[in-house]
Amino acid sequence: MADKIRMGMVGGGADAFIGAVHRMAANIDGQIELVCGAFSSNFEKTQKTAETLFLDPSRAYKSYEAMIEGEKKLPLNERMQVVSIVTPNHLHYAPAKLALENGFHVICDKPVTFNLTEALELEKIVKQTGLIFALTHTYTGYPMIKEAKYLIKSGKFGKIRKVIVEYPQGWLSTNLETSGQKQADWRTDPTRAGISCCMGDIGTHAENLAEYVTGLHITELCADLSTFVEGRLLDDDGNVLIRFNNGAKGILHASQISAGEENNVNIRIYGEKGGLMWQQKDNNSLVIMHLNRPNETLRTGGPGLSSMAAPANTRVPAGHPEGYLEAFANIYKNFAMAVRNHEKGLKHDYETFDFPQIQEGVRGMLFVEKVVESSSKNVWVKM
Amino acid sequence: MADKIRMGMVGGGADAFIGAVHRMAANIDGQIELVCGAFSSNFEKTQKTAETLFLDPSRAYKSYEAMIEGEKKLPLNERMQVVSIVTPNHLHYAPAKLALENGFHVICDKPVTFNLTEALELEKIVKQTGLIFALTHTYTGYPMIKEAKYLIKSGKFGKIRKVIVEYPQGWLSTNLETSGQKQADWRTDPTRAGISCCMGDIGTHAENLAEYVTGLHITELCADLSTFVEGRLLDDDGNVLIRFNNGAKGILHASQISAGEENNVNIRIYGEKGGLMWQQKDNNSLVIMHLNRPNETLRTGGPGLSSMAAPANTRVPAGHPEGYLEAFANIYKNFAMAVRNHEKGLKHDYETFDFPQIQEGVRGMLFVEKVVESSSKNVWVKM
Amino acid sequence: MADKIRMGMVGGGADAFIGAVHRMAANIDGQIELVCGAFSSNFEKTQKTAETLFLDPSRAYKSYEAMIEGEKKLPLNERMQVVSIVTPNHLHYAPAKLALENGFHVICDKPVTFNLTEALELEKIVKQTGLIFALTHTYTGYPMIKEAKYLIKSGKFGKIRKVIVEYPQGWLSTNLETSGQKQADWRTDPTRAGISCCMGDIGTHAENLAEYVTGLHITELCADLSTFVEGRLLDDDGNVLIRFNNGAKGILHASQISAGEENNVNIRIYGEKGGLMWQQKDNNSLVIMHLNRPNETLRTGGPGLSSMAAPANTRVPAGHPEGYLEAFANIYKNFAMAVRNHEKGLKHDYETFDFPQIQEGVRGMLFVEKVVESSSKNVWVKM
Amino acid sequence: MADKIRMGMVGGGADAFIGAVHRMAANIDGQIELVCGAFSSNFEKTQKTAETLFLDPSRAYKSYEAMIEGEKKLPLNERMQVVSIVTPNHLHYAPAKLALENGFHVICDKPVTFNLTEALELEKIVKQTGLIFALTHTYTGYPMIKEAKYLIKSGKFGKIRKVIVEYPQGWLSTNLETSGQKQADWRTDPTRAGISCCMGDIGTHAENLAEYVTGLHITELCADLSTFVEGRLLDDDGNVLIRFNNGAKGILHASQISAGEENNVNIRIYGEKGGLMWQQKDNNSLVIMHLNRPNETLRTGGPGLSSMAAPANTRVPAGHPEGYLEAFANIYKNFAMAVRNHEKGLKHDYETFDFPQIQEGVRGMLFVEKVVESSSKNVWVKM
Repeated sequence: MADKIRMGMVGGGADAFIGAVHRMAANIDGQIELVCGAFSSNFEKTQKTAETLFLDPSRAYKSYEAMIEGEKKLPLNERMQVVSIVTPNHLHYAPAKLALENGFHVICDKPVTFNLTEALELEKIVKQTGLIFALTHTYTGYPMIKEAKYLIKSGKFGKIRKVIVEYPQGWLSTNLETSGQKQADWRTDPTRAGISCCMGDIGTHAENLAEYVTGLHITELCADLSTFVEGRLLDDDGNVLIRFNNGAKGILHASQISAGEENNVNIRIYGEKGGLMWQQKDNNSLVIMHLNRPNETLRTGGPGLSSMAAPANTRVPAGHPEGYLEAFANIYKNFAMAVRNHEKGLKHDYETFDFPQIQEGVRGMLFVEKVVESSSKNVWVKM
Repeated sequence: MADKIRMGMVGGGADAFIGAVHRMAANIDGQIELVCGAFSSNFEKTQKTAETLFLDPSRAYKSYEAMIEGEKKLPLNERMQVVSIVTPNHLHYAPAKLALENGFHVICDKPVTFNLTEALELEKIVKQTGLIFALTHTYTGYPMIKEAKYLIKSGKFGKIRKVIVEYPQGWLSTNLETSGQKQADWRTDPTRAGISCCMGDIGTHAENLAEYVTGLHITELCADLSTFVEGRLLDDDGNVLIRFNNGAKGILHASQISAGEENNVNIRIYGEKGGLMWQQKDNNSLVIMHLNRPNETLRTGGPGLSSMAAPANTRVPAGHPEGYLEAFANIYKNFAMAVRNHEKGLKHDYETFDFPQIQEGVRGMLFVEKVVESSSKNVWVKM
Repeated sequence: MADKIRMGMVGGGADAFIGAVHRMAANIDGQIELVCGAFSSNFEKTQKTAETLFLDPSRAYKSYEAMIEGEKKLPLNERMQVVSIVTPNHLHYAPAKLALENGFHVICDKPVTFNLTEALELEKIVKQTGLIFALTHTYTGYPMIKEAKYLIKSGKFGKIRKVIVEYPQGWLSTNLETSGQKQADWRTDPTRAGISCCMGDIGTHAENLAEYVTGLHITELCADLSTFVEGRLLDDDGNVLIRFNNGAKGILHASQISAGEENNVNIRIYGEKGGLMWQQKDNNSLVIMHLNRPNETLRTGGPGLSSMAAPANTRVPAGHPEGYLEAFANIYKNFAMAVRNHEKGLKHDYETFDFPQIQEGVRGMLFVEKVVESSSKNVWVKM
Repeated sequence: MADKIRMGMVGGGADAFIGAVHRMAANIDGQIELVCGAFSSNFEKTQKTAETLFLDPSRAYKSYEAMIEGEKKLPLNERMQVVSIVTPNHLHYAPAKLALENGFHVICDKPVTFNLTEALELEKIVKQTGLIFALTHTYTGYPMIKEAKYLIKSGKFGKIRKVIVEYPQGWLSTNLETSGQKQADWRTDPTRAGISCCMGDIGTHAENLAEYVTGLHITELCADLSTFVEGRLLDDDGNVLIRFNNGAKGILHASQISAGEENNVNIRIYGEKGGLMWQQKDNNSLVIMHLNRPNETLRTGGPGLSSMAAPANTRVPAGHPEGYLEAFANIYKNFAMAVRNHEKGLKHDYETFDFPQIQEGVRGMLFVEKVVESSSKNVWVKM
């Protein structure tokens, strides 16, 4: 009898936002069971979190090191198989490294590490261990984003000419970090977030989305980062001109001070023969634009899709809206499937059941370094 | 140490649509564990389903009777506590009755029974046993629908004057039931669906939504049901004029032959001082209309909400779209909470953590009988 | 050298809403010149209106009778050729009759007359004189409505099964007529508006739109009219079940108490093979729904249109929004063209340059009588 | 008795797009009468155009010089008072200069001239003559754009931080200019369009819109212009980072190769306390975003507007969509009013009845020179 994939979690205590998201995403499809955790540096908090999650108290650990050590002592059919890392950026690398070196597959929040050096190190470790590493760039999990990727790959739009990717938020329009709000606190702190706030946190999502959907690489950029809120140490807004390896041009902007915006990530792509538009606000629609025909709207679960990628990552019929958690769950579901395949020695179908991996993490960290460099020097830089 | 609520399932074998939906809804919040099932009348199918769900093979049962009997023999801290019923309409009453009479709480798909007589019987049994009974009228689970309900209750719009509730689908535009499609097959069969197809399946959702949000009761109606697809035995479309107990007037229509529509349930309500509009397609928005001020758009997770009902049933911050599965999960989550409260002898907070119950099921069956009567006689009838 | 068509106007003094709309609509295409008017029963007001319109003071008339008499004395190449009637309902019939009997073509606001008897009389006079009579059911002037009509006529959607036509407004949610607002004043007054307020004023637009686009006739209806605002003498809201001559079913509702709605006329039509949706709010789009293909959006001025009717009634390229005045202007432009053709003895192309005529007016008045009868008797009636 | 303002037109022959637009815009409000024209370099064409416009044949002129000379010979109360210039860019300066120097007011299409030198020259002439000069940057004519301007001016959003202005079109995605299409032909020809195609034609609209609404000036920019269609001599796409005089940052992009886009000009502006969003596609709505309150939607003709500018430039009640021609007409109407005021020696109210003037033209030409310079050097430049 097969079992669910057993998972341990690093980070994600009671008042963390993203830890709960990871757990719901892991739950939806019933493929993964959370069995243990080191949820907080405060052990009492970890114990309380474990209790609310109905975990065996003996598997609430004082630290990720203790968790990895403790779980290794359990029988193979009980011990955790994968580690989910949901801590702030500066606490990704060490637990990921230790987990991989001890034979555990890893699924990690983005951006992958604190800086590019760590990302490159981690890439080596992943390659050496041959284990599965997933990075939760959520937006790649949306069925209509997968459809967009395969439509472009099919050549339907001809050569891609222009890409506009946006990620405006407004939640840091004021000095929220001084109010004790934890999410704002670490993201604006250079010792925990790294050299960028806005670009590291959500600019990397935009960069990943643009490269994922187009299949292209950004090769040059010119960035204009700003810190609008007084006293803040890192950027809270950034506008970037981008150029791609095929000659396409584009714009990427991300913001945490676009007052009134929620989490409005969106992308538009234009090729020689047509284009497409997707926005998270209406994530179940993908607008297809034609040169000389009326626009069409593809829909999650709807007719006329170009490959199996979208339907294979859809749960309910068209018109029953799926959302953010389902997109997130697609990463967990596909990661779990890849882990099963790995354990059985089978090849995983990365075309239909894909998820972002370590190399996407490295691209993201390179992007952050380059936008900061370009903006500080006021020049175009190569990436 | 507390445990998850242990659930058994009746129906929901491999190719059923709604069984998988119930399971995902039950999974999301990590409050419920599926422990057993009688998924199909075909035992082999049940066993295969159990396997894909990682269940203990000994808890895959040949029938719901066997499941109830078998589980009762297990120790209290192992046996299932609740039964989820996801079979076609004609197979709701019997398992619900047996489960309740054996001390198991029940969560049941809609419409609650095959006919009004059964619904009234079941209502008696629920009252006699004092157990928790939840009916999965999904649309009441949306945060913005809960907000709508409490805004109206607060008197913000004054006396309600007009209600328009719509539920158009297009999937039965052709004779799909002759193709072997299981969903179409039983819904168009009077021996399994009851006296109505369209009105029973989705008209009841519309009726429930209108009464839930307004807090009013339909007292009179004039219906015009149609069967547009040749050879079909039950209605596939219906238009209904409605009158409410406070003097409000309205329109309810539902359709399975609105070619090109997916699952476009929506509602508009107008009072003396303003109104509101909600549609499932954009379920995270609730448009508030004012007499002499610009319209506003309330958002799931956003500012300006009027009660705790919406935020308490929201999982992620504004701008991270929630959808159908999360609305469904709110019913399961609140049901699980009510079961826990029941077991601890605590009063459940039905204002904040509400879910549809047996009386909503009775209203639905009464509605179905009345629309069929009105339409066949071509007259207004009292409800 | 050709001249513009010379027009006289009855009604439309300074504080009238619809008179100014007619004049702008007549102006846009430069085909018509306003040369005279009897704008008000108050001659001073008429003189002032004439002055602001840069008219020759000698052609500001004390009454429509004086205008018709006065203009007839002018040389043929100076006198007005057509009369535009923009008075309240009870003042349509008499000036229209007199104008036609004196050889002037007529363009008249809707509903065509005060009651059905007048409408039938007027129909006779139009036929007898052989002159051009246009009725300003504005919504038929929208390019995308014309496209909808010809798509349905082409058989693209197969047999039509269901029609939903809505016309909600909120401006009469309060007792506005007691404030001296002129538009509210006459519309709610049975001596000037006739037997219906809401159904006469905008219900007739909805009825006309449904019959225009589908090419079908309503044959039976069941109406539920209401007067929600205390002290009001006529209906301010109405819901109607409708049946068409081909077996299609539908819903028509109109309201002046849908608080917060502006002027939200819209229509949805479903056939065996697909359907369409149009709303005035987004008048330049026509959503085409298919059974097994993604929806498409046709656009004013855009590609993929099915006949010359839409492009021939479009002024600017796709993406330059046209609106209400342009739709209205299409009626004036096509009326002017028909008048020219009539004067030259040429056949007018009513397929491409159509406008509503007297028979649409008769249908509207019949509709008003029937909805009032059905509602007062609480029964279905034949139309 | 007052007369309409008498207008002559330079350019705008039969197959010109923008000439007809100018005429319809001038017609709508009945304030202006077209009395003469030099519509084409081909006199026969001019004569035919004059005939279709019902002009006196003696006032169809062979050239703009002839028109100015001819009209000057007519009595004051007959001769044209204003000249409308609707020729390609290289033919703006000379007729504008001659008209102004002969005492005629001028309304001119954009961009104002062929290059910056001409623009600065023309600015001098306008100042010297003291005559009225209007530039048809259409988008400033939309009521909701005027509302946006005055909301920002009122300080409602605090200091402005970020501006995103976009103008994507797709009509030049292919080599349309080689097909004989006249609009494509001259716009892609450096001898008629100037140093830029996309940025001159529509980038200037975007620049004007951003400066108009914010009341700010662009002070620095970094542009990336492209020519995607082979054989084309000028840019057909451009992305620009912008910085404003108050420290705000922004993005401006315009494109003629965004395949499938129609004419999708839009703007978003964010300040310390909120923001706004407007798009031409839905020109009658202005979305107001707040930091801690639900978004609101202001509407043309609707409640809650902040100044007289929007209502004074609106013709019909809320819900009767106005569009591109009405926005264009607002420029003509306000220009006509300014001309009347000028002739009467009255001060014109530029707050309520504003229109773009020569200085906006100069800014546009400066913008074009600077984006071309920045892009060719691959650096930030000051503006």
